[in-house]
Amino acid sequence: MALGLHFILILFSLYLVPSFTLAFSPILPRFPSSAVSAELKQSSHSAPNSPYRTKFFPQILDHFNFNPQSNHVFQQRYLINDTFWGGAKNNAPIFVYTGNEGNIEWFTQNTGFMFENAPSFHALLVFIEHRFYGKSIPFGGNRKVAYANASTLGYLSSTQALADYATLIIDLKKNLSATDSPVVVFGGSYGGMLAAWFRMKYPHVAIGALASSAPILHFMDLVSPDIFNNIISQDFRSESENCYKVLKGSWKLIEDTANKPGGLQLLQKSFRICNNDFGPGSLENWLRTAWVYTAMTDYPTPSNFLNPLPAYPIKKMCEAIEGTEREKNDGLGKLYAAASVYYNYTGTATCFDLDDDSDPHDLGGWQWQACTEMIMPVGGSNKHSIFPEYEWSYQDRASSCQFFYNVTPRPHWITTEFGGHAIQTVLKRSASNIIFFNGLRDPWSGGGVLKNISKTIVAIVEKRGAHHVDLRYSTKEDPKWLKDVRRQEVKIIASWISQYYQDLHSNN
Amino acid sequence: MALGLHFILILFSLYLVPSFTLAFSPILPRFPSSAVSAELKQSSHSAPNSPYRTKFFPQILDHFNFNPQSNHVFQQRYLINDTFWGGAKNNAPIFVYTGNEGNIEWFTQNTGFMFENAPSFHALLVFIEHRFYGKSIPFGGNRKVAYANASTLGYLSSTQALADYATLIIDLKKNLSATDSPVVVFGGSYGGMLAAWFRMKYPHVAIGALASSAPILHFMDLVSPDIFNNIISQDFRSESENCYKVLKGSWKLIEDTANKPGGLQLLQKSFRICNNDFGPGSLENWLRTAWVYTAMTDYPTPSNFLNPLPAYPIKKMCEAIEGTEREKNDGLGKLYAAASVYYNYTGTATCFDLDDDSDPHDLGGWQWQACTEMIMPVGGSNKHSIFPEYEWSYQDRASSCQFFYNVTPRPHWITTEFGGHAIQTVLKRSASNIIFFNGLRDPWSGGGVLKNISKTIVAIVEKRGAHHVDLRYSTKEDPKWLKDVRRQEVKIIASWISQYYQDLHSNN
Repeated sequence: MALGLHFILILFSLYLVPSFTLAFSPILPRFPSSAVSAELKQSSHSAPNSPYRTKFFPQILDHFNFNPQSNHVFQQRYLINDTFWGGAKNNAPIFVYTGNEGNIEWFTQNTGFMFENAPSFHALLVFIEHRFYGKSIPFGGNRKVAYANASTLGYLSSTQALADYATLIIDLKKNLSATDSPVVVFGGSYGGMLAAWFRMKYPHVAIGALASSAPILHFMDLVSPDIFNNIISQDFRSESENCYKVLKGSWKLIEDTANKPGGLQLLQKSFRICNNDFGPGSLENWLRTAWVYTAMTDYPTPSNFLNPLPAYPIKKMCEAIEGTEREKNDGLGKLYAAASVYYNYTGTATCFDLDDDSDPHDLGGWQWQACTEMIMPVGGSNKHSIFPEYEWSYQDRASSCQFFYNVTPRPHWITTEFGGHAIQTVLKRSASNIIFFNGLRDPWSGGGVLKNISKTIVAIVEKRGAHHVDLRYSTKEDPKWLKDVRRQEVKIIASWISQYYQDLHSNN
Repeated sequence: MALGLHFILILFSLYLVPSFTLAFSPILPRFPSSAVSAELKQSSHSAPNSPYRTKFFPQILDHFNFNPQSNHVFQQRYLINDTFWGGAKNNAPIFVYTGNEGNIEWFTQNTGFMFENAPSFHALLVFIEHRFYGKSIPFGGNRKVAYANASTLGYLSSTQALADYATLIIDLKKNLSATDSPVVVFGGSYGGMLAAWFRMKYPHVAIGALASSAPILHFMDLVSPDIFNNIISQDFRSESENCYKVLKGSWKLIEDTANKPGGLQLLQKSFRICNNDFGPGSLENWLRTAWVYTAMTDYPTPSNFLNPLPAYPIKKMCEAIEGTEREKNDGLGKLYAAASVYYNYTGTATCFDLDDDSDPHDLGGWQWQACTEMIMPVGGSNKHSIFPEYEWSYQDRASSCQFFYNVTPRPHWITTEFGGHAIQTVLKRSASNIIFFNGLRDPWSGGGVLKNISKTIVAIVEKRGAHHVDLRYSTKEDPKWLKDVRRQEVKIIASWISQYYQDLHSNN
C-alpha cells in the first residue's frame, strides 16, 4: 500500500475516475477507473428517452473581479427540452440541472427524474454544463490551454460555476420572456451540492432545490475522514460477516502472494490482468475502485451509470464471494469473482488493463478542484474498515497538490463561503425549500444532511438507497421505497411551485 | 450645463466626493467636494468617545479564483474595541461594521450607535475597512500600484469585500475562541448594502444585519433615475415653494449672468470664489454638491459628517434664501447665503476653491466601482427637479468608463448576484433578520427597502430622517422620533440574539 493508492483516493472525484493526464510521478501512478472491453465502453453512453437540443451560452470568465482577462468569454454548453413546457404566458416552471464535474450529457442521461416529471409540471428542462468540463472549456474551447496550469485552471471553481448558472438562467428567462417562471434546481452528488448552494446563494433565481446525495458537510472539521470507507465496509458487512472478512483480508493476501516466487504471475492469471508489468498496488487500486463504486451505485435495479451492473451489486459481490462452487480457500478466486461483478457484468471482457486511465465522462478537472477548494476528507480507514488502516491527512493532500499543480489548497474556503458548521441552526433561520436526499448505502451520505432542518428544508433519508438513486429513470422493478421517495419529492416540489404562484399572485 | 457636471453626478460615490486623480479631460473637469479653510478641514475628523485599537489582517487578494496572483496577501485594517465585551465564555455578541467606500476611521467615528449599545449588549466592536480604501490597499499597500489600472483595480469589488469580511470574522472568532458568539453586522449607505447582502449571503457568519440607508434597489430596471434628484427637490420644496423656485431658477440665473459683460467677475465676487479662471459649470457643480449633501445629511441636530452643519440644514438654507435682510431680486446673494450653510457654517472660510478635489475620507475608489458593478442610476432630472432637466443614460456611463478606465461596466451583475427584482417575494422565503432603515429626507431612500418583508425583515421608515441618521451618536437634542427608531432597532437586535441563544441551547 504505497502512498500512491491513498493519494488517488484522497483526490478522487465524487465519481472517483480521475484521469491523470497532467502530471505523473513514481509516487503518483496512474490507476484504473474501469478496465473493460471495447464493446462495453461504447455502450456505456446510451440512455433512453433523453431528447434535448444542445445550445451554447457566451459566459464570462470571471464574475468576481474586473481584470481585463475576466471579461473573456467562453461557450458554455447547455441542453434544453421544451417538449413539455407550459410556456412563458402561463409562468410554467423551469427545471434546471446544475451540472457537476463531468460531461453534462452523462448526467442528463442519468437524471430521468426530471424527464419523467416534466410533463405533469409542464416544465422546461435545462441541463447546464459546469465550466471546464465536457464542451464548456474556457480559452477558446482549447482544453490544452485551459488545463495548462494554475493561471488558466484558476477559473475552475464552484463559486464561478454558481455565478455561471445564475447568469445563464436569468438571461435564458429574459430571452424566453419568462421572468416570472419559477426555477427549481436539481443536482446529484457535486451537482447536488451546487443545487443546494445555489438555492442558498441565489434564492432570487431558484425557488427551491432538490439536492440528491450532496455531501455539503464532507469538509474538514465537519466529518470523520474515516466515514466514507466505514460506510462501504458496512455495506458489505450487512450482506454477510464472511464477505466483509474476505475483503478485509484481501490486501494481505495480495501482498503475501506478490511476495512469493511466481506470485505476480499467479495474480495476473487469477485476475486476468492484461499488463505484464504491474505491481500489487495497481491491483489493489483496481479492487478498491470496484468496491467503492459498487457501494456508491448499489442500486435496486440493473444500471449502467459508471459500469453496467446487476441489481443490488453489493449483494451480488458477496454472493460471488460466498459462491458454493468455489473452494473455501480460493481467496483470489473469490476476489476475482466479486470484482467481475463490477468490471465484467456483461461478460465480454477478455482481460483487464490496470493502467487504464480513460475518462469517458471527462471528470479530470476534479483533481484541480480537490487541490484548491474541495478539501473533502475521504479515504481514512480505521480498524473496522475493509481497507487497510490509514490516517487521512490534510498535509498529504497539500504536498501532493503542491507537487501536481504548484498550488496550495484553501482548506477552509468552502465552509467560509457556504457554511456547514451548526447547519441546523443556520439554515433554519436563513433558507428554505431544499430537499436533501441521501441513501445510506452511499458512502457519500456520511457528509450529507440527514436531519430535517425546518418545515421547508427536508432531509429524505433512505437506508436502502445509494448515490442519487432518486434521480434515475424509473423502472418497472423499482422497489416501493424508491417510488415513495420520488413521490415525496414530487409532492414537495409541487408545494414550492404552488406557494410561489400564490406569492406572485398576491404581489400583483 | 456641460456633460462634465452630469458625468460627475452619474459617477458619484454614495458620499459623492470623488477625487479625479486618475484621468482628466476637458469634458471631465475636476470639481469641488468642499472648499473651506484649512482650520475647517483639520477639525472635520474629530469624534467623541471612539476608542479602538487598530489591527491588520492578512487578507487574500482574490477569493473566487485560484490563479497564482489570487494568493497574494494584503493587510486589511480593522478597528476593535473590547471594553464592553462579555467574553467568549459567555458567547457574548460581536458587532461588526462592514466598512464602505472610504477610510474606516471616518465611518467608525460616525457610528456611535454601536459604541452606545455595546455596554448593554456586552458586545465586542469590530470595524472592518473595505479593500482598496483607507489603509487596506492591496499590492503591498502601494496605492499607486493598486489604483494603476484594471489589472490591479480589478480586485476592488463588492463580492470580494464580502468574502473578506467572512474570512476575517471567522478567523477572528477562532482566535478569540468565540466561535459560538453571535455576530451582528451594521452598515450605513454602501456599508448598509454590504451588511444586508452579508446577512443574505453569509447567514452562517452573521445572525442579522442593521442596514441603514442601504439603497440595494438603486439599480437598473429597479428604480427611476430621477428619483434621487426628485427627493432632494422635494426636501427643499417641503420648506417653502419659494425656496424650491429660487433653486430651480438658479441655473439660468448663473448662465445668464456669466454671459453678460463682467458677469464672471460678478459671480466670483458674489460667491467669494478664490479661482480667477472658473467657468459657470464649476460654480454649478459647487452648488449642486451643497444641495445634494445637505439633503443627505439633513440631520435634526448639528453634525459634522461631510461638513459642519447646523441642525435641519435644509431648513436653514431655505431660511437663508428667504432672509428678510436681503433684497428680493438679489438672486445670487440668496444662493450664496444658502451655499454658505453647507460650505461655511463655522464662518471661517475666506474664499472658496471651486477646483478643490481633496478627498479627506478617501472615497476615490468608488469611481472604479461605479464603472464596473455599481451602475446606480442617479442624476436624472425631470421637470419637477430643482436641477436642470437631464435624462440619465447607461450609454453615457459606459462611454465615460471606457474613457476613464478602458472598462465596460456589467450593469446587471449586482442584480444577478444579489437580486433585487421581486424582493418582497424572494426575501420573504429566503432570508431573515434584517432591518432596513430609511429616512425619507435622504435622496438615497428612493432605492431603499421601504416595506416590511416579513416578521424578521423589517423596514423602518422615518419621513423626517436623513442618511443613516440612526447610526449617529445620540445627542441631548435628539427628537423623539429618532430615539424611537433607535429603541426599535435595539429591541429587534436583542430579539435576534435571544433567539440565537435559544437555538444554540436547544442544539447542544
